[in-house]
Order: sequence, then C-alpha cells, then structure tokens
Amino acid sequence: MRFVRYGQPGAEKPGVLDAAGRVRDLSGVVDDLGGAVLGNLPQVDPETLPLVDGNPRLGVPVAGIGKLVCIGLNYSDHAAEAGMAEPEEPIVFMKATSALNGPNDPVYLPRGSEKSDWEVELGVVIGKTAKYVSAADALDYVAGYTIVNDLSERAFQIERGGQWTKGKSSDTFGPVGPWLVSADDVADPQNLALELDLNGEKAQRGNTSSMIFTVAQIIEHLSEMMSLQPGDVIATGTPPGVGMGMKPPRFLREGDVMELRIEGLGVQRQEVQRDA
Amino acid sequence: MRFVRYGQPGAEKPGVLDAAGRVRDLSGVVDDLGGAVLGNLPQVDPETLPLVDGNPRLGVPVAGIGKLVCIGLNYSDHAAEAGMAEPEEPIVFMKATSALNGPNDPVYLPRGSEKSDWEVELGVVIGKTAKYVSAADALDYVAGYTIVNDLSERAFQIERGGQWTKGKSSDTFGPVGPWLVSADDVADPQNLALELDLNGEKAQRGNTSSMIFTVAQIIEHLSEMMSLQPGDVIATGTPPGVGMGMKPPRFLREGDVMELRIEGLGVQRQEVQRDA
Repeated sequence: MRFVRYGQPGAEKPGVLDAAGRVRDLSGVVDDLGGAVLGNLPQVDPETLPLVDGNPRLGVPVAGIGKLVCIGLNYSDHAAEAGMAEPEEPIVFMKATSALNGPNDPVYLPRGSEKSDWEVELGVVIGKTAKYVSAADALDYVAGYTIVNDLSERAFQIERGGQWTKGKSSDTFGPVGPWLVSADDVADPQNLALELDLNGEKAQRGNTSSMIFTVAQIIEHLSEMMSLQPGDVIATGTPPGVGMGMKPPRFLREGDVMELRIEGLGVQRQEVQRDA
Repeated sequence: MRFVRYGQPGAEKPGVLDAAGRVRDLSGVVDDLGGAVLGNLPQVDPETLPLVDGNPRLGVPVAGIGKLVCIGLNYSDHAAEAGMAEPEEPIVFMKATSALNGPNDPVYLPRGSEKSDWEVELGVVIGKTAKYVSAADALDYVAGYTIVNDLSERAFQIERGGQWTKGKSSDTFGPVGPWLVSADDVADPQNLALELDLNGEKAQRGNTSSMIFTVAQIIEHLSEMMSLQPGDVIATGTPPGVGMGMKPPRFLREGDVMELRIEGLGVQRQEVQRDA
C-alpha cells in the first residue's frame, strides 16, 4: 500500500493511493499516519474509500517524526568516487526535524549559501520501538519505505567547525515522500534503483545493493545506542553523483529543479528558491 | 516563575512553584508547558492555585521538545583543561529527543557501556520561532532556563566512527529540569555558577561567564542555519570536571549518584543503573 498525507502544510490528512494512483481519503479509518498506527498500518481496499478531488499537495507521509537519523558515506561506489575509505561502522548524524519538507515543496537555500547540494536516499520509517534489535529481526520494526532528499550545505557542514548537523538542518532541507510504501510491498530493500536528476540531466545513479551497511544492519547498530521509535525516519546514505563530487563542483542555484526517484517509491520534485 | 511538569512519565501536568517551593497545579490555566504557551508563559499568582499534595515526581519541564541542540567545547577553562584550542565557531550536534529524562529519574547505562560520563549544562528553552536573529535580539526568543545533564558515552562518541550523536543519544541520557525558570527571573544568564557532584564529591565547577560563545551568540549562530522553534532546548556546553578529563579517567558505574546544580535553577539528582 502506498500511503500519503495530503492537504495544506500543517493540515494534512491521511490518504492512500488506489490502483489508478488516485488519492483516497483515509481519515475515516485512522486519524493520521503516525505513532502506533505505523506499527499496524490499516489494511483496507482503497477502492472502498472516498476519492479525493483534484491533485492535492502532498506532505511528509509520516506524522510526528521524532527524529531524523542519517547515515553518512554508506555506498561503496560513492566512497570510491570520493576517494574515501569505507567506514568500519555506520557514520551517524541527525538532521533537525524542523527541516522536514513536503516531497514537492520548494527548497529554500539559506542566506549566504553557496554550496548547497542534493542527496537522494532510501528512507526507512520505523513502525515499532526498537532497542537492542538484531539485524536478523530488524526489518520486523520497519513500517515502510520512502524517499529522502538529504540536502546539505557543504560549507556549513564542513567549513564551519565541528559536526555535520550544521549543514543538514536548514528549513526545507528534508523533503520526505511522496509515499510511505508499506514494508510488505517492498520485496527487497537492498535492491532498489535510486536516481536524482538536476534540471532534467542525470546526476545521481545507484542501487541500494551497493550499501555498505544494510537497512537491517543500520537498525541493529542504531538500536544499540538509542531507541528507535514509531515515526522515526532513517536516511540510509546516498549513491554517487552529488554536486560536491563533480569536477568542478556544482551546487544548487535558484531555479534549479531536482527530481528524485526510487524504484517503487515514487518521485519527488523540488524547485530551488532562496531565503529573502 | 519556576514552572514544572509533575506526575507519572507520559502523564505530567503543568505546575508552578509557590513562594514556599511547593507545587501548585497550573492545569486550570494552561494545558501544558509547550508550543505557543512558551512564548507567553502564564502570569499568575501561584498562591491562588490549588496545592498539589505530597512530593510528586517531576518530569522534563517542557512538553513536546522538537530538538535538543548541543554545543561542544564551549567553556574556555574546559578547553584549556582538555588541552584543546578554543573553537572559532560553536560546535553543534544533536541529542536524540528519545534520550529525554526527568531530572531525578534513574539514568541507565546502555549495554556494553564502560565510558559513560556526565556534563552539567545550562539549558536554554526557546519560546518563539527564531530565524536569522541577531545576538542583540536573541534573548527575546528565550522562554527560560533549566539544567541539562548532557550524558555522553565516550566510546560511542569518539571510538565508534564519525559523529558525536552516537554517544549522546542513549535513552535517559538527557535529564532536563527540575524547573523551567522564566527568563525574567534570570538576571544574567552569563553569570551563573554550575556544579556537579558525584557521590557527594566535587566533580564539575564552573560559571557561565566562562562560555566562549554566549547564549545570545549561540542563538544567532544556530538561527542562521536552522530555525529554532518553541520548545527547542539548547544545551550550551559544559565546564571543567568531566570524567574523561580526570587522571585516570573516571566513568559512571551502577549505584553512582550525580547531583547537578545551577544558581537559581534548582537541583537534579540521578542514580545510575544499567540496562538489563
């Protein structure tokens, strides 16, 4: 099932796509797609639900995201491209939840930004509290999957002292969606093609089969150090083709359009604007 | 005014201390101490409110904390003690909000932890959305102040690859409280004595006058890179005396008792236990 949250920012309602890809209203079945609902996603025939008119805006498909945990340098081909050694353990950092953004909403460059960059990533949505979970059991705790654009201001991230959070947390730097695809509809999270195009031209290409640490291994690792809660989202790292890695580097400018695709998880599309 | 949230975990009610230090029930005035309420804290005479019987448990004094932003290496005397250069810009990292803990609740060492450490810090509670705020105006966005124990597993933080978040985010590693003291009752946030005792013996001693970056400068800096929202908490760094800096290092063990004090902000007290 492909779940969505539709409507104006801050007033989204839960929905589900029908076979024809139209939004059906799920608000008569669940209040929202967050918390305990994620551990037991509704099993309904979308065709029996009210059709939503028009082409509504889509919001982040998960409500009440408590934390947005990101994994760095997790694709072997990206590590090779960057000339960096593969990490021995997952590199973990956080993106502020205030950076969350609808999948097709504009992305705003923060004032002074000259090095903002894109990163298409598989997003893992936690469905049940996970603590000290083994990799063998880890996928039982996953509600589903989505796309995350882990936007990154490289100067803030790398040149401004200390930890990466600084360059990851600007408002609108966390588009998530368009759908939450329930885990039972993703046959193998380690075999999904990921793509990001900039202004219609190829930028990133990869496959989750190149992950250094699998989704299951990441959950095991994180759950050793913190509990994962329903609604937490893990962004699992990005494949080759980010702007920082281009020769010369190519960073985001006003008017740029990013289009992100992951096999079976839909498409995101963001136009770049700049904070006044 | 000294605001509290009292009651069992997950069911806390808002309260306020009266002149005698007793908890008065504020739930007839506000639903909770979070969100927009923080931008306009209630002005009531505590003596007119119902007295709460007994000696209730205190929870985190802010509801719905969206992000817990931490500043590293922000005391000149701590930097000197550690033999490290003072940072040119604030070092920023995040602690998972799932680590939040009541001020007097037990702290649980995660499995395998041998290097867990304490850090008494001034906590700043944001009252109004702050973005591109100047240091001159920054304190207008502060609802009040509290104590944060920025507990840190040093092996997770430093020896396990990458970013500090790993060692900062274990469950119970974020005690906050006991009180949210409204900003109008803190004459000068840059002149507060901080203390942490371990098992009744002196561990940390400092004063916020030794901060490298003031509260106002930190807010200016952060608000350039992310928006700060009502209910966000900033932990502003720790003075000398952490376990990692002792010779030999002294880390937390089961049964240890930490007592944290900041001038005018009350006392926290946690007993150390260990995850089964």
